[in-house]
Amino acid sequence: MRFWVDPLPRPGAYAGVVVVVVDVIRATTTASAYLRAGARALVLAPSLEAARALKGREEVLAGEVGGLRPRGFDLGNSPREVAGLEGRTVVMATTNGTRAAHAVRGARAILLGSLQNAAAVAQEAARLGEEVALVCAGREGRVALDDLYTAGIIGKRLQERGFRPMGDGAVLALLLTHQPPLEVLQASEAALALREVGLSADVEACAQVDLHGVVPLYAGFRGEGMVFRRADAQES
Amino acid sequence: MRFWVDPLPRPGAYAGVVVVVVDVIRATTTASAYLRAGARALVLAPSLEAARALKGREEVLAGEVGGLRPRGFDLGNSPREVAGLEGRTVVMATTNGTRAAHAVRGARAILLGSLQNAAAVAQEAARLGEEVALVCAGREGRVALDDLYTAGIIGKRLQERGFRPMGDGAVLALLLTHQPPLEVLQASEAALALREVGLSADVEACAQVDLHGVVPLYAGFRGEGMVFRRADAQES
Repeated sequence: MRFWVDPLPRPGAYAGVVVVVVDVIRATTTASAYLRAGARALVLAPSLEAARALKGREEVLAGEVGGLRPRGFDLGNSPREVAGLEGRTVVMATTNGTRAAHAVRGARAILLGSLQNAAAVAQEAARLGEEVALVCAGREGRVALDDLYTAGIIGKRLQERGFRPMGDGAVLALLLTHQPPLEVLQASEAALALREVGLSADVEACAQVDLHGVVPLYAGFRGEGMVFRRADAQES
Repeated sequence: MRFWVDPLPRPGAYAGVVVVVVDVIRATTTASAYLRAGARALVLAPSLEAARALKGREEVLAGEVGGLRPRGFDLGNSPREVAGLEGRTVVMATTNGTRAAHAVRGARAILLGSLQNAAAVAQEAARLGEEVALVCAGREGRVALDDLYTAGIIGKRLQERGFRPMGDGAVLALLLTHQPPLEVLQASEAALALREVGLSADVEACAQVDLHGVVPLYAGFRGEGMVFRRADAQES
């Protein structure tokens, strides 16, 4: 049982591996929050246009431009904005998070990880396989501090379950966990961008560790969207 | 005055910027050690074959395969193997380090940085410009712990000179510097590979911080080799 950490996705490297995608500010935090709030499914779309095209009747449209809700969208990708989602499907446009999820296609299973579900996603990954890759989405092709830190926290939870860290990425991520979560997340470029549009409270939400047990699990494609459901609700 | 850290080279991103290339185990440590030992110039070649072809009469050939000196080479890329280099040119085959140096072409200046010359390379970078990129070579396209740590130490020296860190890479690298150098370097994959061929002492050498003041500075191409000389000896 072992895990490694990729600071950026490496397309084609995940055959047979359980992958946890991390885009903690805010895509994977918000995706989990939607399911936790009762959403039936998520469809991760690679762009605003794709999300508009994928949205069916009765479905909810979530997205952002520069951190804010675009015209015609119901929600703005904030983990604090989750009212009225019970039983509904959310079509969610993200950039880095969706790109990362697409890059790990071919994996044995794909989970979405955040600080809020760190222990739960480690538990679910351990249930699904003995080789786990924690894949950071990054920010426009560059390594993101907040994602690497989150991978470190999830890695610690895997260690507690007997998984062994492998390689420089894992050592690097684990070293970061000596720091407090809010402090590290607030130092990231992603947090700075949110602060500039008045969304500091989202960063605080994203920095909450082991808040809940909801884990999004990849369930198949719908057009160019990737569908995720609660890992504990695959049969429903 | 500001600096950033790239965990991996980003070709095309360095116009007008002073770049410090870091491949601490062992290319940039050894390159500096050669010049410190009296070598007149270094030629960084992208492969063993290229190094053989570039080598002139009276020149010294250095390279490695799996950490060890290849047949027909004079030296094996170890920072502890520097005898008899006074006044000579060393043609040095490296993989990640040379690839990184080539990737930053177009920069305002290119320096080679290591722990051994951390303070000196920061001083030289500050002399050459107000915008400095610390570019980690990485390991076969993946982020390397040892390089990122070294970038953090050099970044600290730049901070002491009034440079401001910019972006997630710099924050990440600076966070690592709370750890002791030998411990971090020994945890890296590069160190593991050297240990397997009995070269642990090289890792200890690479982990020495601020040992000397010799800084290799890019001076031009020779065929497909990049020529470096001592930054304080450009006119000689």
